[in-house]
Amino acid sequence: MTDVAHTGSESVRPVRIVVDAMGGDFAPGNEVQGVIQALDRSSLIELILVGREPELVAALGSNAAHPRVSIVHADDVIAMGDEPSSIVKQRKTSSLYMGLDLVRQGKADAFVSAGNTGGVMATSTMLCGRIPGVSRPTIGTFLPTKTGRPTLLLDVGANVDSKPKFLSDYAVMGSVYTQLMNGVTSPTVGLLNVGEEPGKGTEVAQQSYELLRTNGVNFAGNVEGRDILAGTVDVVVCDGFEGNIVLKFAESILSFLKERFRAYANRGILQKLAMAAFTPVLRKALSGMDYQEYGGVPLLGVNGVTIIGHGSSSPKALANMILRAEEVVRKDVNGTIERALAHAATAAKEQI
Amino acid sequence: MTDVAHTGSESVRPVRIVVDAMGGDFAPGNEVQGVIQALDRSSLIELILVGREPELVAALGSNAAHPRVSIVHADDVIAMGDEPSSIVKQRKTSSLYMGLDLVRQGKADAFVSAGNTGGVMATSTMLCGRIPGVSRPTIGTFLPTKTGRPTLLLDVGANVDSKPKFLSDYAVMGSVYTQLMNGVTSPTVGLLNVGEEPGKGTEVAQQSYELLRTNGVNFAGNVEGRDILAGTVDVVVCDGFEGNIVLKFAESILSFLKERFRAYANRGILQKLAMAAFTPVLRKALSGMDYQEYGGVPLLGVNGVTIIGHGSSSPKALANMILRAEEVVRKDVNGTIERALAHAATAAKEQI
Repeated sequence: MTDVAHTGSESVRPVRIVVDAMGGDFAPGNEVQGVIQALDRSSLIELILVGREPELVAALGSNAAHPRVSIVHADDVIAMGDEPSSIVKQRKTSSLYMGLDLVRQGKADAFVSAGNTGGVMATSTMLCGRIPGVSRPTIGTFLPTKTGRPTLLLDVGANVDSKPKFLSDYAVMGSVYTQLMNGVTSPTVGLLNVGEEPGKGTEVAQQSYELLRTNGVNFAGNVEGRDILAGTVDVVVCDGFEGNIVLKFAESILSFLKERFRAYANRGILQKLAMAAFTPVLRKALSGMDYQEYGGVPLLGVNGVTIIGHGSSSPKALANMILRAEEVVRKDVNGTIERALAHAATAAKEQI
Repeated sequence: MTDVAHTGSESVRPVRIVVDAMGGDFAPGNEVQGVIQALDRSSLIELILVGREPELVAALGSNAAHPRVSIVHADDVIAMGDEPSSIVKQRKTSSLYMGLDLVRQGKADAFVSAGNTGGVMATSTMLCGRIPGVSRPTIGTFLPTKTGRPTLLLDVGANVDSKPKFLSDYAVMGSVYTQLMNGVTSPTVGLLNVGEEPGKGTEVAQQSYELLRTNGVNFAGNVEGRDILAGTVDVVVCDGFEGNIVLKFAESILSFLKERFRAYANRGILQKLAMAAFTPVLRKALSGMDYQEYGGVPLLGVNGVTIIGHGSSSPKALANMILRAEEVVRKDVNGTIERALAHAATAAKEQI
């Protein structure tokens, strides 16, 4: 999220990032404002806005002439409800397709979008392919914890009915991401389950447990629902079915509490004052349980860098997504994932 | 939870309830106190305490001579960590086994325990069998919602890898329970999923969706994680894997928020006062997300009434469990479930 230091042996070539300028609910306004903020915060990025050129030129104003901004015109705009699988075949003039195609062609290093999540995932995977060794790309999200150190929960909705090998790969990818992006040395990984003992849970969970013991991650065993917010481990792996349910449940807590507190505030002026003082504290404590506040989540496992944000992402959230994309490229998250998976495969063979 | 009105055509015979007096973490003290409270609150129950007679006599004091209390001696005590499946074969002198055996023999109408949850479930099912038509007994729990009307989430851990027919039966049992116990007319049922549209989710979820459309419940379609606290529907059905994860996640919110608020309180005296004023409000808003505060959850589908409580259940929680058991018996929840499932089977056949 902060400006990356470019010192010593680190590469200093600019990172070229495509912004799907038509993706979000407030496009292209928020996208353009996010681009301008990001350019101020990092001097080593070049941004390519893909979308309807006249609209983008108007929104950019004087920044249209910025030396590190370019525009690629795309006529078509993918809506939030559009069928993800149809984009690659039928929507080749959309900003989503054309933007990702620039990454596929090697003309850009990363892609950022606040658009149709399923569409971005499907099109990224189909155009760019998977990192060698990855069974399924995955989406993770960080949740705040009691310890203050966030926990990466993944998968949160990219795949349902995950096979044990998928979960094993999520663990490797999540470990690499947490280590490189958050600086956690040897992050601990927990398998989301209904009890701590080995042998608990579904058949898939039981088989995943065995794979996680030997795939090279720092496996801490099963964890339960309560361990996510407790921060028991750095990475929690699960199928996208329960991951998505838990994430959406978490996102709904603030709104639930505010509603429950309303009755309390109506009791009198003191209660109303206490509520007014307390609501921001509550919002802060629960921040990070909402995509929007966080500023994008990585799509891990695709052979290309894609950062996906909430449809209603603010300009600041979009700027954060752009800077995160830069960091993912610079730290070679994808190359590291490829090497870690190759290592895991070797370790698994030796186990046999 | 309140005293049942016994008027008009309702039966007024006493309900005989077995209390596993050795089950909980604070047994037999809390159990005995709960019994005494329950006797005060309902005049139409007879309570049978099963456990070590000398300890129970001592704890009961003058109440040992209460005309509606009896004691059945049981030598053995099941610990929280004991293997559930071994109880029926090897622990026949335990309070858990002997208590449930009284229900099986028809010498009691219901069984209440704050003991080993898995043990109570397994032993109830093995001794009493299932209600005709039930594929799997299930445990549900009520969660508070924005609307103020609680949502019944089930299954929360009795079964993992549930088949679609199991989920269909949870829906029928949950509807009957919500209607009879909470007075909700035609309760709405949602299928916990990762999106609202039909066709979303795992294979099991997709097949369950089809069954729920025709099994006689008031099916409102798929619901997402956020819909639980929003109170979108009265009953949310899911496999015990995700249900247990969501429940334990929910139970951990209060502890998480308290920890996050500690830093705020340390900022100064005003912040500390605001926190002190606010923590009880927060606890109240989140009450019901914890087994203990709620006072037991029903094991639905067993041919006998069993109410299971948290190990650390307070005397008040135990009294609530006892009164709930009385209500489940009086309202003939089990007979109603049997008729509803027979009706669902007929409806499904007509559909074909």
